[in-house]
Amino acid sequence: MGQVEKRLQELGIVLPRPATPVANYVPFVRSGATVTISGQICLGPDGRIAPEHLGKVGADVSAETAHAAARLCAVNVLAQLRAAIGDLDLARRCIRLGGFIASAPDFTGQATVMNGASDLMVEVLGEAGRHARSTIGVAGLPLGASVEVEATFEVA
Amino acid sequence: MGQVEKRLQELGIVLPRPATPVANYVPFVRSGATVTISGQICLGPDGRIAPEHLGKVGADVSAETAHAAARLCAVNVLAQLRAAIGDLDLARRCIRLGGFIASAPDFTGQATVMNGASDLMVEVLGEAGRHARSTIGVAGLPLGASVEVEATFEVA
Amino acid sequence: MGQVEKRLQELGIVLPRPATPVANYVPFVRSGATVTISGQICLGPDGRIAPEHLGKVGADVSAETAHAAARLCAVNVLAQLRAAIGDLDLARRCIRLGGFIASAPDFTGQATVMNGASDLMVEVLGEAGRHARSTIGVAGLPLGASVEVEATFEVA
Repeated sequence: MGQVEKRLQELGIVLPRPATPVANYVPFVRSGATVTISGQICLGPDGRIAPEHLGKVGADVSAETAHAAARLCAVNVLAQLRAAIGDLDLARRCIRLGGFIASAPDFTGQATVMNGASDLMVEVLGEAGRHARSTIGVAGLPLGASVEVEATFEVA
Repeated sequence: MGQVEKRLQELGIVLPRPATPVANYVPFVRSGATVTISGQICLGPDGRIAPEHLGKVGADVSAETAHAAARLCAVNVLAQLRAAIGDLDLARRCIRLGGFIASAPDFTGQATVMNGASDLMVEVLGEAGRHARSTIGVAGLPLGASVEVEATFEVA
Repeated sequence: MGQVEKRLQELGIVLPRPATPVANYVPFVRSGATVTISGQICLGPDGRIAPEHLGKVGADVSAETAHAAARLCAVNVLAQLRAAIGDLDLARRCIRLGGFIASAPDFTGQATVMNGASDLMVEVLGEAGRHARSTIGVAGLPLGASVEVEATFEVA
């Protein structure tokens, strides 16, 4: 078992079966040493969005619950990365996370929400998980998700 | 005539003269084997936004019309790509599309709208057109456009 | 003194001490010849957001003031780039700027606002500063900032 798989096990994180888009796009593309992961919404292990992860943060969804949603997005990103490269030990670096937080008009706590994704990445990948990041509040997300996270990785 | 140009002809798609930014940015940048295309809004062949492509999807604009707007954005992306590399047969892969859908507060159908861009890319480029994708609902877009699409390509 | 540092001096621009994220992400990541800079909000030289740069453009903030905020974001991007590569003369090209403008529902002047960042980049880096760009209106930004700008650069 690889080092990253061991860390996942220690953390009690089971990567879900990665979601397959039902359209003309794919969950990841490798180009040279870079893997680009499609935006992952906060689907649960059952492939559905739990009711508490639907809606706008600051109105329907609390910042705390959205933090958990961001963590879930990051877990889904890792599931796609494993599907892309087979062995997570081949991940050299998380280059960038893009965090999209469906936000009520007055919500300004997007950075704290997005820490749910950033922290997970470092818990699992260690130093290689430390990434550049852009976080924005958006007007809405596909299927009514509260959080979406996209990623690029450098791989071996 | 190249393979991709033939497919464009079969599909009845005429790539417009690519829009030139009137500011200190450029429509595309090549770095190594990657071409980054600036966000393209849903300008028509005349270089203007048709009235039906102005406003927020879910309020002023229907999802069906926005689907056509997303397709138009993808056509404009290909026009820029051709300007960047000369011969579209040199496009090795569409790495990523970013889809920005100007959304009314309760609209959650952004993924279906964005399929208008994703489908066009695969119709024209075939397997090379299958891309990673992030789609978000935004509060507004330049000039009041309903859809904007950005792209990166791997080129020969 | 390098060429770019000289130009900064001529322009009277003092790059601030770059902001350090207080979370598990980093201000920049280098991968190969590409440096990805985290989204920079319109913090002033004192590391705070001035009151006039808080809120939504088109409601709380005028387009003119937001143009200044975008310029400030670009200054902060350059401060991070210098921290990343040491000598700004090693910047070969600004590949892309992503501009996020916190927007009131009816605001459509995002492109003009974002010119504040694009112009600064070309004033400082010359031809190497001409970049691909995507500009969108967002529902909100971290800490209530009116503008955020992310960037990628090709470096020597």
